[in-house]
Amino acid sequence: MRERIAVDMDGVLADIYGQFLKHEFEDLNIKQSLDSLIGKLENEAFSNHDKYINSPNFFYDADPIEDSIEILEEVNSKYDLFIVSSAIQFPLSLDEKVRWLNKYFPFIHWKQIVLCGSKELISGDVMIDDHFKNLDFFNGKTIIFSQPHNLNRENGRHIRVDNWKEIGAILL
Amino acid sequence: MRERIAVDMDGVLADIYGQFLKHEFEDLNIKQSLDSLIGKLENEAFSNHDKYINSPNFFYDADPIEDSIEILEEVNSKYDLFIVSSAIQFPLSLDEKVRWLNKYFPFIHWKQIVLCGSKELISGDVMIDDHFKNLDFFNGKTIIFSQPHNLNRENGRHIRVDNWKEIGAILL
Repeated sequence: MRERIAVDMDGVLADIYGQFLKHEFEDLNIKQSLDSLIGKLENEAFSNHDKYINSPNFFYDADPIEDSIEILEEVNSKYDLFIVSSAIQFPLSLDEKVRWLNKYFPFIHWKQIVLCGSKELISGDVMIDDHFKNLDFFNGKTIIFSQPHNLNRENGRHIRVDNWKEIGAILL
Repeated sequence: MRERIAVDMDGVLADIYGQFLKHEFEDLNIKQSLDSLIGKLENEAFSNHDKYINSPNFFYDADPIEDSIEILEEVNSKYDLFIVSSAIQFPLSLDEKVRWLNKYFPFIHWKQIVLCGSKELISGDVMIDDHFKNLDFFNGKTIIFSQPHNLNRENGRHIRVDNWKEIGAILL
């Protein structure tokens, strides 16, 4: 039986920091460096966080993270892949996220998509996420994808990766 | 620790047959009886199934199933409740389903909502659903909620209930 893997969207497949930086620049003419955001949650890092995240196409216009498309396609051929994204809090994002996946990851069937609030119900063999809160209660192998907000802490339980090539080296 | 329960929406909380019958009557001036639909899947029972299900507000305008609001509120106070709905196939439904839950079940927090394709990843202690395909691989207690499409078969593994009062009698 193939292993089941749950892959997060924001900050793992979708470059959400890029979107925040772009919106902030257009809104406030500010260009923060990623280094200056280390250790801050996104709503601490961007003063108008809620305004940006609730604006139409915030999620749909995000760029895919480097190498994610090619490597996820290979992962999809070897694992039971599910995309698991926290989305319910932002109702506008729901439809955008499905359309975004269809656009950049057309090999992902609708049956493989899960949009949730909490990820507590999600079971499987491997989880890739950029939030400790999602990985900490998962009972399989856990991989933390580096993003500025998670760089300041380490709990030793999760494998840290900085990019999709490192995910490929672990999974493929 | 509280038991975790996953409750389906369509055909368990939301009266989807009522919506199909209403749309079919407005569209074709046909009024099928529920008895005549026994054993037919919804897309077999309603000739313009896809047209209705993809029309705006099909899900948002559904009535809650009798007694579901009062009894689910009690369930919510005694269990870790999650609403788990197959929705990704119908992108219009995503936002409608969240708004519908907020309207009729305001005690349900966004963290408790999961919209998915397949329900394979969902783990927990109890699942209530009207589809055998969702219950059959669930590893906890399974409750099948009677709807015309599931009345023709029985596999002995699931507890059958015909209404929310019966769910209350089992869970509360």
